[in-house]
Amino acid sequence: MIINKKAIIKILCAVMTVVGLSMLLPLVVSLFYGEYDVAKCFGICAAPTIALGLLGVKILPKQDNSVLRMRDGFFIVAATWFVMSLIGCLPFIISGAIPRLADAFFETVSGFTTTGSSILSEIESLPRGILYWRSFTHWLGGMGVLVLTIALLPMLGIGGQKIMRAETTGPTMDKISFTINSGAKGLYIVYGAMTLIEMILLGLCGLDFFDASTHAFGTLGTGGFSTYNTSIGHFQNLPAEIIITVFMILAGVNFNLYYSAVSGKSLGAFKDPEFKGYMAIVGVSMVFITVMLTVSHTYSGFGESLRMSSFTVGSIISSTGYAITDYEVWPEACKLPVLILMLIGGCGGSTAGGLKVIRVIVLVKLIRRNVKKRLSPRTVTAVKVGGKAVSEDTLNGIVAHIGLYALLCILGTFIISLTGVDNITSFTSVVTCLSNIGPGFGLIGPTENFGFYSDFIKYLLSVYMIAGRLEMFTIAILFTRDFWDKNK
Amino acid sequence: MIINKKAIIKILCAVMTVVGLSMLLPLVVSLFYGEYDVAKCFGICAAPTIALGLLGVKILPKQDNSVLRMRDGFFIVAATWFVMSLIGCLPFIISGAIPRLADAFFETVSGFTTTGSSILSEIESLPRGILYWRSFTHWLGGMGVLVLTIALLPMLGIGGQKIMRAETTGPTMDKISFTINSGAKGLYIVYGAMTLIEMILLGLCGLDFFDASTHAFGTLGTGGFSTYNTSIGHFQNLPAEIIITVFMILAGVNFNLYYSAVSGKSLGAFKDPEFKGYMAIVGVSMVFITVMLTVSHTYSGFGESLRMSSFTVGSIISSTGYAITDYEVWPEACKLPVLILMLIGGCGGSTAGGLKVIRVIVLVKLIRRNVKKRLSPRTVTAVKVGGKAVSEDTLNGIVAHIGLYALLCILGTFIISLTGVDNITSFTSVVTCLSNIGPGFGLIGPTENFGFYSDFIKYLLSVYMIAGRLEMFTIAILFTRDFWDKNK
Repeated sequence: MIINKKAIIKILCAVMTVVGLSMLLPLVVSLFYGEYDVAKCFGICAAPTIALGLLGVKILPKQDNSVLRMRDGFFIVAATWFVMSLIGCLPFIISGAIPRLADAFFETVSGFTTTGSSILSEIESLPRGILYWRSFTHWLGGMGVLVLTIALLPMLGIGGQKIMRAETTGPTMDKISFTINSGAKGLYIVYGAMTLIEMILLGLCGLDFFDASTHAFGTLGTGGFSTYNTSIGHFQNLPAEIIITVFMILAGVNFNLYYSAVSGKSLGAFKDPEFKGYMAIVGVSMVFITVMLTVSHTYSGFGESLRMSSFTVGSIISSTGYAITDYEVWPEACKLPVLILMLIGGCGGSTAGGLKVIRVIVLVKLIRRNVKKRLSPRTVTAVKVGGKAVSEDTLNGIVAHIGLYALLCILGTFIISLTGVDNITSFTSVVTCLSNIGPGFGLIGPTENFGFYSDFIKYLLSVYMIAGRLEMFTIAILFTRDFWDKNK
Repeated sequence: MIINKKAIIKILCAVMTVVGLSMLLPLVVSLFYGEYDVAKCFGICAAPTIALGLLGVKILPKQDNSVLRMRDGFFIVAATWFVMSLIGCLPFIISGAIPRLADAFFETVSGFTTTGSSILSEIESLPRGILYWRSFTHWLGGMGVLVLTIALLPMLGIGGQKIMRAETTGPTMDKISFTINSGAKGLYIVYGAMTLIEMILLGLCGLDFFDASTHAFGTLGTGGFSTYNTSIGHFQNLPAEIIITVFMILAGVNFNLYYSAVSGKSLGAFKDPEFKGYMAIVGVSMVFITVMLTVSHTYSGFGESLRMSSFTVGSIISSTGYAITDYEVWPEACKLPVLILMLIGGCGGSTAGGLKVIRVIVLVKLIRRNVKKRLSPRTVTAVKVGGKAVSEDTLNGIVAHIGLYALLCILGTFIISLTGVDNITSFTSVVTCLSNIGPGFGLIGPTENFGFYSDFIKYLLSVYMIAGRLEMFTIAILFTRDFWDKNK
């Protein structure tokens, strides 16, 4: 059980303050576009949230966060994500944009977890302030709200590191140095700078401030919410598509690499084996799908095939979910790679979802080692990544991660199929939520939405999105008896 | 590379002799039914096979099989399965029953590997002798042809154990005693006795000698070839269906348990955790599917639902593939359990295919351990099955097995989808072949067949069936550079 309730409440209050403060951005946007009713909604939500948050932070005594244990860290992170999703959905409900709680909660969780699945069929008629908030949740969730809180309020001290660990993506690779911890501030500086660069570039392509910033939030957070019904396809703007493709792929890379490249003024960090693997997967997938689309005459020629292929590959492997075309009309042999990209996802330490490239690399090497071991049973060979041996503990953790992912997929598909939905839709709904992507196959393809699901399934998928964002174990732990055992 | 070519040829000759001798059974059946042309075909195939085999066994000097290394064992087993499939398909080709090599090879591999997938759409018009051979291949392959050879010709000595290991199913559970090695003879005595009991029981239900014996071969070998187009549904004989259901489930159990129960005159062996897990999965699946079929009114009532559910669950988890109904008309929520049962399969040491229950149990426990470990990182807890710790080496082997299975599934699905076949058909074709089941979903459902595939895909799926029967690593090893390295 939790030992230090006051410390936890204090941290949650700090998070509330940050979420409340971040609502001031869409408030200003609403005012700018003359949507005074909407601005009032944001004011109604932000004021008490900030007030309560600050009150809590001030009143509660300074805590010694170094006594926080792992289980406290997990609880804080899980509680943070549920609390901020509940606060974050208030503007949608109060403004009447998404009146029902199940819908608004799903949409907000989808935003914060950078999934980008939507229950809305008609997006463009929503007020601009609401759309801005919807896209901004991607940006806030991408690098982690707690990480942001730690960056803004260094009060958490040593305990903060434990908490950050539970919110950043990728496996803990003990003794392997390629997940350099750049600290909360460093990460947010890189993240912010890249967002700004993309905004400016999109502006140069002719997008206005509103479109450029909302889509930059969605790209860097690898979210996928657009402000248009036809997503990026709306613009029919090739330069913008190229920029978004490049930034989606960049957002799937470990941000620590950028930080160490900038701070160390060297590109050595990009020798990282996960980065190489990620780029190889992106390249091979693009080439293969382009060839298949060209020979199958799905589009008007090689150029169009390359355009559709590269955008979609970037969108799916980075778990963004933006679309310029419907991959459901592609030949069968192209659909399987799309599904596989959904499962793999980006790199650890990025804003992308999925299993993460490093885990897939380790699994493949583990299999290869075991094939060799059958031949020469007495040879002891460690699994090596980038020339460094992966400890058996890390191996076990990665295997358990992939196994838990598979189990959750089966469980989720099963529960959804009980409601009579076909298995392709059920399975890809679960995959797309657990990998924080956005679209799937069947009834939830790139041109469809999640609105038809019952409230129960919407809540279930919301939990899946949070579980996926927090790499499952943080949420899975809450379902164990050990966690709630008062004696532990 | 192989060190002892003579020893290997000698063993292959012994296998040839056994396969040649086993053709005498369908020869006698052909004579009995007055199919003299067919009998002549079997004679033409059997005589030179037996002659060549015996010649090789006699001429080649007595070998010291204790010097056989693991890699020799793998090579022998792989070579055996390809050689015997090539010999085994000759009667089909020569008799004109299945004139094309790709088809006949697929059908024979499907028989020996106890898959039961067929390229035939019309079965009943084939000569009885041919049908008898087709069913008998299930029986021969079920417990392993090399195991049979070792039982009949004890010449292999110590080396025989190494070879047998590569042909029997289930993981090597070092230090865990529940895979008691009963030896080749013990296994075949139990196997033969159970086949005889089922034959007699089916005879009591009104089936004639031909039907009773062919279907007993198909059941105990967990094969699935029937002599009727509508499989077991042809008989419309409830008692026979119940007997076949029970024996299919029994055939999915580790045969060592039966042997030790009979020889030790105690039922203690059935406390085996894998056996309990297997029975639990069978029970839960039957209850769930029965309830779903009843409430969805798929059949006329509870009785019919129970009948269809229990037969299909037994048929699928044991990887037999007999059918009395088409599960493709079932509600979506029942199809997923069918697919999961396909993946799980029976117990190690049985004639069933799939991942094997023990591997699934270990994987689930591994995941559970890791969830707990995140809570208390310093606690070292071994994965225990039946109160005994599973070594990390065994854990790794099991994980690599499941991972390799997944990789082969993805690879196979991808290759087949390149030919334009839909992904559901491609995926379940691969799963059903790799798990040695028989039917899948889509174009290869229980009422369809594999005849429409191109020759290339038929050969590919043949390799998959052999790889699945030999639990993949034996075949995967042949594709490594290490194996063919002359210096090793």
